Amino acid sequence: MEEFFMKEALKEAQKAYCRKEVPIGAVVVYKNKIIGRGYNLREKKKSALMHAEIVAISKACKKLKSWRLEDCELYVTLEPCPMCAGAIIQSRIKKVFFGAFDAKAGCAGSTFDLFEKGKFNHDVEVTGGVLQEDCAALLKTFFKELRKFDKS
Amino acid sequence: MEEFFMKEALKEAQKAYCRKEVPIGAVVVYKNKIIGRGYNLREKKKSALMHAEIVAISKACKKLKSWRLEDCELYVTLEPCPMCAGAIIQSRIKKVFFGAFDAKAGCAGSTFDLFEKGKFNHDVEVTGGVLQEDCAALLKTFFKELRKFDKS
Repeated sequence: MEEFFMKEALKEAQKAYCRKEVPIGAVVVYKNKIIGRGYNLREKKKSALMHAEIVAISKACKKLKSWRLEDCELYVTLEPCPMCAGAIIQSRIKKVFFGAFDAKAGCAGSTFDLFEKGKFNHDVEVTGGVLQEDCAALLKTFFKELRKFDKS
Repeated sequence: MEEFFMKEALKEAQKAYCRKEVPIGAVVVYKNKIIGRGYNLREKKKSALMHAEIVAISKACKKLKSWRLEDCELYVTLEPCPMCAGAIIQSRIKKVFFGAFDAKAGCAGSTFDLFEKGKFNHDVEVTGGVLQEDCAALLKTFFKELRKFDKS
């Protein structure tokens, strides 16, 4: 099940890739159904807020007509940054599954652990490394292409 | 100058108060002009993302037609939560001034210090406690009223 939904998040990341955005994708799942999808749109929307998780959470809130996503899970291809980890806590998401680890900005342990139990008024269960290689490979290809383009 | 813009953030917080939202307000300033205003709209918009800072940053990005707010300052009446501290880092805001401290969820030192120098690829200068008493008083009054209402 974890892999099924991570593959859906990867499909979203692929959409970002095709639009020349850093390829990160996310889905929000409620009762085994996807209720919010999102991919990174920072360049297109000219807003640093437009990360995959934020887009997916925003759509899920609209779908459930609530800011509380208490019985939801979020799948994202990269370890959440501070903003997205915070948005997950704020929207009371129950479980998070992420793919690749982000040593530079990941906030599920890599730089800070914002999901540390008891730190905020809502605890989130976190599982990292789901389809890690596929998630990392897409990012690696993207940045390799970008460097090639920069040199040409 | 700091106090002038914090008073503007307080005006935004007051708007939230009148709409029965937790009274937090923010403004983004560029070259001494306010280019984005926001107040907490979580209940009205049914989205946990709709914090004052996020609303103000989003408007500022639209105004400058860029996700980079490198020469901007943000004034907010309460110490930013993890999501908003992350959004400030992501959008490359230069300086942050906040009013009241938030012992429970503040991420400018109270719970975590997401603005710790060298932690991410962008450093933010932070000043806390600007018009602290006014900012805290508005929140205090709001929660006092809320409890009164709960009991009645």
